Amino acid sequence: MALLNENYLKLKAGYLFPEIGRRTATFAEANPEASIIKMGIGDVVRGVPRPVIEAMKQACEELAHDESFQGYPPAQGHDFLLESIAEHEFGSRGVAVATDEIFLSDGAKCDSANIQEIFAIDQIVALTDPVYPVYCDSNVMAGRTGEADHAGRYEGLVYLPCTAENGFSPALPETHVDLIYLCSPNNPTGAVMSKQVLASWVEYARREQAIIIFDSAYEAYISDPEIPHSIYEIDGAREVAIEMRSYSKTAAFTGVRCAFTVVPRQLLGSTLNGDDISLHDLWSRRQSTKYNGVSYPVQKGAAACYGPEGKAAIRDLVGFYMANAALMKKELTAAGYTVYGGDNAPYLWIVCPAGNDSWGFFDVLLQQAHVVSTPGAGFGSAGEGYVRLSAFQQRDRVHEALERIRRL
Amino acid sequence: MALLNENYLKLKAGYLFPEIGRRTATFAEANPEASIIKMGIGDVVRGVPRPVIEAMKQACEELAHDESFQGYPPAQGHDFLLESIAEHEFGSRGVAVATDEIFLSDGAKCDSANIQEIFAIDQIVALTDPVYPVYCDSNVMAGRTGEADHAGRYEGLVYLPCTAENGFSPALPETHVDLIYLCSPNNPTGAVMSKQVLASWVEYARREQAIIIFDSAYEAYISDPEIPHSIYEIDGAREVAIEMRSYSKTAAFTGVRCAFTVVPRQLLGSTLNGDDISLHDLWSRRQSTKYNGVSYPVQKGAAACYGPEGKAAIRDLVGFYMANAALMKKELTAAGYTVYGGDNAPYLWIVCPAGNDSWGFFDVLLQQAHVVSTPGAGFGSAGEGYVRLSAFQQRDRVHEALERIRRL
Repeated sequence: MALLNENYLKLKAGYLFPEIGRRTATFAEANPEASIIKMGIGDVVRGVPRPVIEAMKQACEELAHDESFQGYPPAQGHDFLLESIAEHEFGSRGVAVATDEIFLSDGAKCDSANIQEIFAIDQIVALTDPVYPVYCDSNVMAGRTGEADHAGRYEGLVYLPCTAENGFSPALPETHVDLIYLCSPNNPTGAVMSKQVLASWVEYARREQAIIIFDSAYEAYISDPEIPHSIYEIDGAREVAIEMRSYSKTAAFTGVRCAFTVVPRQLLGSTLNGDDISLHDLWSRRQSTKYNGVSYPVQKGAAACYGPEGKAAIRDLVGFYMANAALMKKELTAAGYTVYGGDNAPYLWIVCPAGNDSWGFFDVLLQQAHVVSTPGAGFGSAGEGYVRLSAFQQRDRVHEALERIRRL
Repeated sequence: MALLNENYLKLKAGYLFPEIGRRTATFAEANPEASIIKMGIGDVVRGVPRPVIEAMKQACEELAHDESFQGYPPAQGHDFLLESIAEHEFGSRGVAVATDEIFLSDGAKCDSANIQEIFAIDQIVALTDPVYPVYCDSNVMAGRTGEADHAGRYEGLVYLPCTAENGFSPALPETHVDLIYLCSPNNPTGAVMSKQVLASWVEYARREQAIIIFDSAYEAYISDPEIPHSIYEIDGAREVAIEMRSYSKTAAFTGVRCAFTVVPRQLLGSTLNGDDISLHDLWSRRQSTKYNGVSYPVQKGAAACYGPEGKAAIRDLVGFYMANAALMKKELTAAGYTVYGGDNAPYLWIVCPAGNDSWGFFDVLLQQAHVVSTPGAGFGSAGEGYVRLSAFQQRDRVHEALERIRRL
């Protein structure tokens, strides 16, 4: 019989979010009268902005006519969108990113899962703990780890604990690592990396000749003007960093699907023989072989995010969710909870009340408050003792959830 | 410096289609007055059918409103589309495929590149020669091969030549293989596998406990009622085959992006220890970890393909391109060319005139007839001496291209 990739069998349980979905569905089935408020998976709830919708509809109409039909997209994306990204996401912050350094995709999740493919299998990977599970699982599936221990930590990975004691800002690795996944604003802790902290990572990567995979899918949620939105705001980052962005949490594209990854031309990897090779070329080869581009109406919709009306609508959306976050942080704190995050990120990282572990408090919230959270332990062993609440809800549901949690 | 995946360096030249694009662009730049007719890459040229467009627009409008907003899609796809696929693609042909065996994706190219991930790295892969390059390159990138020889054949792969002598129907492997990629109607040769031939492959796979990866992206182009559209029309195929389909060449979705892969529940792989594991579960884990689903408006558009108006429009589109194929085959044959394919597939597989190899005749067609073809050698060493012409063009362009080729 055909042999399977046994690395998959090392994975602990299911991917986190399907597991939460299963528990929630089981509860809902047993309690059909319960009005469940979902603040777990981090999906948005408000509609896609009108200028984006109109651009998508117009693009659909273009597809209907032979004269304006669009077939296979250019490999990295249509110029109209790549140029807007270069200008509005980077140029406007004084960061030079060329259009041919931008690779569109259908999700930052996909890119962050796929990026490890272009590196050698024996490279040492550093992950924060807690961490977005995709960074970890994709490396497990590729065979870059051994088995997991009882705490769910895979042999061979370097874990960088993010705890209340270090302000959820991990210390630099004490040993050499080759690949480092960083996420700021952070999913799940809601912490952000200051310019100084990010600079220390760039310096580490330059010194160790390591590559930073920087996930800034939540950069639009930064309110503090001192916090960098792009790692390329740090001098020297272009030689050591790949950056990922997404439209999911800005233009409400969780169901529309668009994201992009920046791979600077300067970025090099090495062969065993010591030859330097462009990682941009490798990623280009990976994408042109295994991917076929983003849907045309979606690219048109994403481009509409950069017009004056699109920008204003996205500011409103982000502002709405961040007002939720502020409300949640204030009221939960007043109710006696210890709450982190929520200032520059749509996630609150909440200490479980004494006597509860993550999944235990997840169950309390689900069964007694009918609120779906995400258990911190699902993000790694240092997430034990926390749950994550997302600010992606309608205001009345947030009020209702807070009221129910207060009554616990 | 971070070490890269050196398997990528084994790949010969660029991926075929970017290379064709580069040569075409160079010619166009040097000859700005030339009216180039593209019959190379296999992209469609006619608009997306109206019922599909209207469904997509309506879905966009739904996304604009909080009440009808759609966020992250269900992992395998929305039920409305999965149910339509099960009924209209399979049920209508007497084939039972359950909705939870269908995995939507953004392209059959992506799925056919990714599917190898769930198998062990030492599995023996059989490919037809010529072959759609993605099947080969994805296995090279994964490390399942050694280096390529001077003919571009990678060490470790089992090549199954498809030649005029065997009617472009490969013989069964003489040795054991674990994974077999089959494509019918075939890209690039335009050949189709009869029920009897396909049954012999299923029998081989059952005997050798191998897995067939069956790409039927072009099944809508089958005109002969005796040719199977799905491998599951063959008894016993559910235990040995994965099947891939696409909307690219039916609903003109090359720029819209939607496809699906069927992994039957019965399909098993094995661990080294001899434990049987569901390949459905492994693929589900792969997709839920590394993928995030198809855009909602795209899923709605795909579903509209199955209404009476959608079906009629797709029949018209396919009929139009197949009339092109018939015209091309007739006229090129009359002009003295030896032409294969084109009867049950939108591709013609044309013997290069004496004294021309594939890339040589590609250049003749480009430079003298201003027609872009695809050199057969780009699909493998047994493709040397052929070019592929696609029937995906407007009728007047087809006439013009044929006229120019006749004048050569």
